[in-house]
Amino acid sequence: MIENSGIPFAVDALVFDAYGTLFDVQSVASTAEALFPGHGAALAQLWRSKQLEYSWLQSLMQSPTHPRQDFAAVTAHALAYAADALALPLASHARHRMLDAYLDLSPFPDADPALAALAPRRRLILSNGTRAMLEPLAAATGLARHLDNILSVDDAGVYKPSPRVYHLAVDALKLPPLRIGFVSSNAWDAIGAKAFGFTVFWINRIGAPLDRHGPRPDCVIRRLAELPALLTAA
Amino acid sequence: MIENSGIPFAVDALVFDAYGTLFDVQSVASTAEALFPGHGAALAQLWRSKQLEYSWLQSLMQSPTHPRQDFAAVTAHALAYAADALALPLASHARHRMLDAYLDLSPFPDADPALAALAPRRRLILSNGTRAMLEPLAAATGLARHLDNILSVDDAGVYKPSPRVYHLAVDALKLPPLRIGFVSSNAWDAIGAKAFGFTVFWINRIGAPLDRHGPRPDCVIRRLAELPALLTAA
Repeated sequence: MIENSGIPFAVDALVFDAYGTLFDVQSVASTAEALFPGHGAALAQLWRSKQLEYSWLQSLMQSPTHPRQDFAAVTAHALAYAADALALPLASHARHRMLDAYLDLSPFPDADPALAALAPRRRLILSNGTRAMLEPLAAATGLARHLDNILSVDDAGVYKPSPRVYHLAVDALKLPPLRIGFVSSNAWDAIGAKAFGFTVFWINRIGAPLDRHGPRPDCVIRRLAELPALLTAA
Repeated sequence: MIENSGIPFAVDALVFDAYGTLFDVQSVASTAEALFPGHGAALAQLWRSKQLEYSWLQSLMQSPTHPRQDFAAVTAHALAYAADALALPLASHARHRMLDAYLDLSPFPDADPALAALAPRRRLILSNGTRAMLEPLAAATGLARHLDNILSVDDAGVYKPSPRVYHLAVDALKLPPLRIGFVSSNAWDAIGAKAFGFTVFWINRIGAPLDRHGPRPDCVIRRLAELPALLTAA
């Protein structure tokens, strides 16, 4: 893993994770705190961890009789569990406010300028979210004008980190994986993308330790703003 | 999900998860606490949660260039991460003591009598563990004398809850899935086994809420000791 080594990375296109990478999910915790004062952080954290866990489990256990559900359904199931586990009563209006929070996220402040600076390289989103979750979010936040395409795992029928998901970007870009820069703040996503063969940038905003279950990302950065300067000229 | 409905379940064989179901992993936390006073519970909890997470992620992301590693390797990676995340210095001797704790577990007090009472039905273990982890443990604890077979996910090349893992039990027992009683204290394992088609008993010792990402187990019990009386006569 290279931190500011000075050697530029030669990639022809960039593929971004959405939740936590381009879009700040902190507002979900704020909504949770407004609804359940004193419990917002715990609820948001358990919700997020169950959301990911369910996406992995449904991917692994799926069969013709038990197909995977989409990310909106997984997110709703995870919220129901998290509220139950924390003994927080989740009335219908509160449930809708929590789920709607995922449709009304803010981009990180450096997302718009970083995406702009990466032009004229093609820039895509590849996310666990459904197209119905992602497209209005990209439009409302203005990031859509910097994006050439939004890819959803739904086209692969499985969640990250399945290689079938990452292959959607290869199919869309018609580039070899190493010429594609994959950017995620989720370590497990960055590691899965590296196992697939992308050139991978892990955005480690909080200085977390790196997970150990697969190959290391090529480069770790703290902010999206660092990315453009790390690449060879377009 | 039926709790003490009184309707007996018609199964011809029983398949048990190992870690947390037949064997108490609490002693792992005790070893952690002895090595890192005040941090044992947090270390054991993060270790276990990363151990499972890595097993799911490696299953999902595996490819010919990045094959799945076995449970001993996954367990060691998860421990390294957990110690790092909690800023606990893990010297070589401490690491070995922690990893060895998984090879020296006690069975739950009702495991031996429950397994004995389930005879003459066939009784198997089906575990994420390697045969090298499971067989000495079953022998040392005496549970081996009640077991007809020990199946490891290694024979399927993927971790639970892949249906390919659960199919190992069908192949070994030559029974239809519904005639096989699957017993696990791990909700995600019980749900995966139910999606596969077993008759499933979830041992919920701590009164946890049930996860929501798949079909409900057939029956929830608090202890292994409750199991024999829930079945039709052998």
